[in-house]
Amino acid sequence: VPVVPQGTRTGLAGGAAALDGALVLCLERMDAILAIDPVDRVAVVQPGVVTARLAAAVAEHGLFYAPDPASAETSTIGGNIATNAGGMRCVKYGVTRDAVRALELVLADGRVLRTGTVTAKGVAGLDLVGLVVGSEGTLAVVTEATLALLPAPGPTRGVCATFPDVASALATVRDILAGPHTPSTLELLDSVVVGAIAAYDEDAGLPRGAGALVLALTDAATGGEQDVAAYEAAARRHGALAVQVEDDPARVDGLLRARRAYQPAMKALRGDSLNGDIAVPLSRLPELVGRLRALSDEAGLPIGTGGHVGDGNLHPVVAFDPADAGERRRARAAYEAFGRIAIALGGTATGEHGIGLERLDVVATELGADLVGLQRAVKAAFDPAGILNPGKKY
Amino acid sequence: VPVVPQGTRTGLAGGAAALDGALVLCLERMDAILAIDPVDRVAVVQPGVVTARLAAAVAEHGLFYAPDPASAETSTIGGNIATNAGGMRCVKYGVTRDAVRALELVLADGRVLRTGTVTAKGVAGLDLVGLVVGSEGTLAVVTEATLALLPAPGPTRGVCATFPDVASALATVRDILAGPHTPSTLELLDSVVVGAIAAYDEDAGLPRGAGALVLALTDAATGGEQDVAAYEAAARRHGALAVQVEDDPARVDGLLRARRAYQPAMKALRGDSLNGDIAVPLSRLPELVGRLRALSDEAGLPIGTGGHVGDGNLHPVVAFDPADAGERRRARAAYEAFGRIAIALGGTATGEHGIGLERLDVVATELGADLVGLQRAVKAAFDPAGILNPGKKY
Repeated sequence: VPVVPQGTRTGLAGGAAALDGALVLCLERMDAILAIDPVDRVAVVQPGVVTARLAAAVAEHGLFYAPDPASAETSTIGGNIATNAGGMRCVKYGVTRDAVRALELVLADGRVLRTGTVTAKGVAGLDLVGLVVGSEGTLAVVTEATLALLPAPGPTRGVCATFPDVASALATVRDILAGPHTPSTLELLDSVVVGAIAAYDEDAGLPRGAGALVLALTDAATGGEQDVAAYEAAARRHGALAVQVEDDPARVDGLLRARRAYQPAMKALRGDSLNGDIAVPLSRLPELVGRLRALSDEAGLPIGTGGHVGDGNLHPVVAFDPADAGERRRARAAYEAFGRIAIALGGTATGEHGIGLERLDVVATELGADLVGLQRAVKAAFDPAGILNPGKKY
Repeated sequence: VPVVPQGTRTGLAGGAAALDGALVLCLERMDAILAIDPVDRVAVVQPGVVTARLAAAVAEHGLFYAPDPASAETSTIGGNIATNAGGMRCVKYGVTRDAVRALELVLADGRVLRTGTVTAKGVAGLDLVGLVVGSEGTLAVVTEATLALLPAPGPTRGVCATFPDVASALATVRDILAGPHTPSTLELLDSVVVGAIAAYDEDAGLPRGAGALVLALTDAATGGEQDVAAYEAAARRHGALAVQVEDDPARVDGLLRARRAYQPAMKALRGDSLNGDIAVPLSRLPELVGRLRALSDEAGLPIGTGGHVGDGNLHPVVAFDPADAGERRRARAAYEAFGRIAIALGGTATGEHGIGLERLDVVATELGADLVGLQRAVKAAFDPAGILNPGKKY
């Protein structure tokens, strides 16, 4: 009997979607925080712990759980591990995999294994922890995770800068990343997205009429002022129209809230939307933006572009009227083109959401038949009968 | 015909040792630096590039290759990848795996595959990059690597503090790690090691007569002074006998050179030595130090302890007279106990050197039969005929 592991079902690629005839294994209530160790700087948790709950619990010990996917208030650690979840802080702290030290796994045949080390270093075995992270429930069921914690960061502050065009915004991004003032968050929104958010939430307070917006934040415990000054200088050097320097926590939160309205605002534009999750090398971003603009013209539909520009990970969104069959068709075609364009530019069709059921069509294009075959052989080494989340990921 | 991939053969666990009847595949002259891209912040290199040569080449572009194993002047990137090499900067920058974005692999059947992404994010496949890193040549032959680079750090500076005993040194280490002033290097040497280095190199300049020594360095581009002040304050809080604050590059280099004399100095004590590579959770370090002291008493041989204390990764060294059969036997027994003690304390028998041929006896103890079986199944998925570096690692 096939088994589909599920958390709180916030995934965006259908990785946890139920399958006909399958047993759904819901891990939502396996939600204990088993230990928070301030000396070893690890937390030991069950998979159903909601990410934001863990973050709050470790903060009480003066510690910090770095991964912060947009779904943190509702998604679980198990789901974050299954998808190798990203988010807005990866430009400084890396992805979920970078925070996972050790796992307890239940294999397809019911055996329970522990793999990984509490310490950051450990080379006694193959890195099965890294292999399971991002495997979308196809290799094993995670029943416990040992997660790395960091000392509490400093206050979050930074700049919100607008530009006449995306090119100058991208030049600013390059400049910031080339210097020593590593941002904790570096986001881009193009004019379509800024306009959509302004229309969706009049209180968002985003400056209107700009060609692009860059949000650069730091959470450095020391040197934060210099970081902010460097971001402001970079923006001005590249012709920023306006630079809002912000260190008031409530106002920084307001900027992040406005940024998080990206997807709902794009959906509200015409009633529905399809959301991409591509990543390309930073050097190819100007080309990517041009290709997406051409795609929007071709589709005759608005495509908003932005996201985690510091990682090269953008979430283009095509908006469409769900009542219009032609728009539905053209939106789907544009959405499918997102991945192909990213692959052609040396990138990936999915930076942080995963393959699930949603992107199976691009796997062979991006990875090639030999690599897919090797991955299936690795899957078979874990799950010879193929009962764990079949039909997903590969 | 079995195939044993080799670089410059600087490994410490015999992972690249030739085998009877095997073909040795020497990658030493496949040593081109194919690209250094300051925008995408990656280098593309062949496996035979010596680590220090890559570090120097990227420094010319104002960039930084973080991994810095002690063997950097002689070891190759291919060997670093095979062993997931560590070193003195891991406490801030992580291990070699954290710097590897993508690989070109030759499989056992001769097929050539590329896996991974240039971008930091990418979840289209299983993480085969992480799986191959640290696999000690048993899964595939790495013929090209895309490596993450960082902006150039600030100057290296810090403190060298001596303590009356190891306990106060470890309390200082805890304190430093709990705060926001992340060191780039955090090393411990106990009195046996400090004494051995002082005897080995009279110019080393290490303070004598102390029970333990801590070296805490920072390479922060901003806030370095505050970091150093925090390290000094932590040392004084825990009863340091002397705190040498150092920001002169030549003198900081001198401290690092003295630290690097650890193994040769221990070897010189009695003519030969056996070097451990254990890691334990930070909370178990005081217990580890006590167990090693008892082991030294039991063996009637000097055991020096120290290493990358910020990672919990220590390199205990037992010194012995190679002409004395009794000492040889007792030294071997003590050496084999290092791994068992670390495992009993929730750690690992090898933090950064690997299993190779040298530690095959502890694999089953540390990982257990089920996990070893699963790893062998993964190995068989890559190399069904078992021709790649057989008899190593598992």
